[in-house]
Amino acid sequence: MARRGRPGHDLESVLRCAVALFNERGYDRTSMEDLARGLGITKSAIYHHVPGKEELLRLAVNRALDGLFAVADEAASVEGRAVERLEYLVRGSVGLLVEQLPFVTLLLRVRGNTRVERAALARRREFDRIVAELVAEAEREGDLRPDVDPAVTARLLFGLVNSLIEWYRPARARTDISEAVARIAFEGIRLRA
Amino acid sequence: MARRGRPGHDLESVLRCAVALFNERGYDRTSMEDLARGLGITKSAIYHHVPGKEELLRLAVNRALDGLFAVADEAASVEGRAVERLEYLVRGSVGLLVEQLPFVTLLLRVRGNTRVERAALARRREFDRIVAELVAEAEREGDLRPDVDPAVTARLLFGLVNSLIEWYRPARARTDISEAVARIAFEGIRLRA
Repeated sequence: MARRGRPGHDLESVLRCAVALFNERGYDRTSMEDLARGLGITKSAIYHHVPGKEELLRLAVNRALDGLFAVADEAASVEGRAVERLEYLVRGSVGLLVEQLPFVTLLLRVRGNTRVERAALARRREFDRIVAELVAEAEREGDLRPDVDPAVTARLLFGLVNSLIEWYRPARARTDISEAVARIAFEGIRLRA
Repeated sequence: MARRGRPGHDLESVLRCAVALFNERGYDRTSMEDLARGLGITKSAIYHHVPGKEELLRLAVNRALDGLFAVADEAASVEGRAVERLEYLVRGSVGLLVEQLPFVTLLLRVRGNTRVERAALARRREFDRIVAELVAEAEREGDLRPDVDPAVTARLLFGLVNSLIEWYRPARARTDISEAVARIAFEGIRLRA
C-alpha cells in the first residue's frame, strides 16, 4: 500500500484529479503544471505514473468506454425480444453513467483534436451503432413505435440518457434514476388512461 | 443596404461568425483577432459594431433566451390542460432550437465565468422553473405519470430536447423533429398493444 509514495498519490488518485480538472476547464487548457498543483505534488511525481496528460485522457475515456461495452455485452446476452435487450442497455448505461459520472462526462465532451480523442470518438460511434441496430431490430419485431425513424429514436434515446451529465449529481439524488429514465423513455411522461 | 461597409459585414454577419467560432473553440479561447481573421476584416471594423466580444456573447445568448421566453409566453396562453401547454412548450422549444441552432448551442454551453454568462444562466434557470411548474401542474391534473418526481421529469424532458444540439443538423434532416421529440417524450418509444 502506498508503495509509490504518499498515500493518495497512486495512479488512481492522479487519474481522478486529472478527470476533474479536464471536466472543469477542458482537456486542452489543463497542463501538467495545473495537475501537479491540483494534487499538491511535483510534475515528476506524476511522470512517475504516466508519460503525459494524453495517457491520463486515454485511461479515463477508456474506463467509460469499457464500461459501456461491458453493458452492451451483457445486454446482448439477454434472451427474449430486442426491446428487452434495449431496455437492459438503457438501464445499464444510466447505471454506469451514475457510477462513473466524471469519466462518462469527459468521454461525452471529447471533441477529437488528438489521436486519443479520435480513437475515443471511433469507439463511441461503434457503441452508437450497437444501439441503432438494437432499436432497428426492436422496431422490426413490432415493439417500438414505427412512426419515428429508428435512427432518430436511437439518437433521442441516448440523448436522454447522456443529458444526465448536465444535472444529475448522485450525492443529492433521491430517485432511482435508471428506473425514471427507462419509464420515461419507453412509456413516455404522459399517464395513460 | 451595406450602409456600414462591404456587404456581409453588418452586425448580423459579425454575430453569426462569432457564434460559429465560440461554438467551435469556446468563448474564452476566441479572441477579437480570431474573429477579425474569420471575417476577413480588421478588428476596428468589428469595434465599429460592438465594444467587444462580450457584447457579441450577450447578443447571441439573448437571441436564444428571448426565443425560449417567447415560446413560453405562447404556451402560457394555450387554453385547456397544463399537459397541452407543456406539449406546446416542448414542440416550440424544439422548433426554436432547430431554427436558431448555433445560438441555442452557445446558450447551452455557457458555463458562467463572466457577467454576461452568469446573467444567461440566471435566465436559463428562470426558464427551467417555468418548465418545472408546468410539469408539476400537469401532474396535479393527473395527466403525467406520478411515479417519477416532477422535478426529474422536467429535467429529463428538456434533457431530451437539448440533446438535439449534439447531433441534429437541419440541412440533413428528413424527419419532423418536433413531432418525433413530442411523441417520444409524451408517449415513449414503445409501441402499445
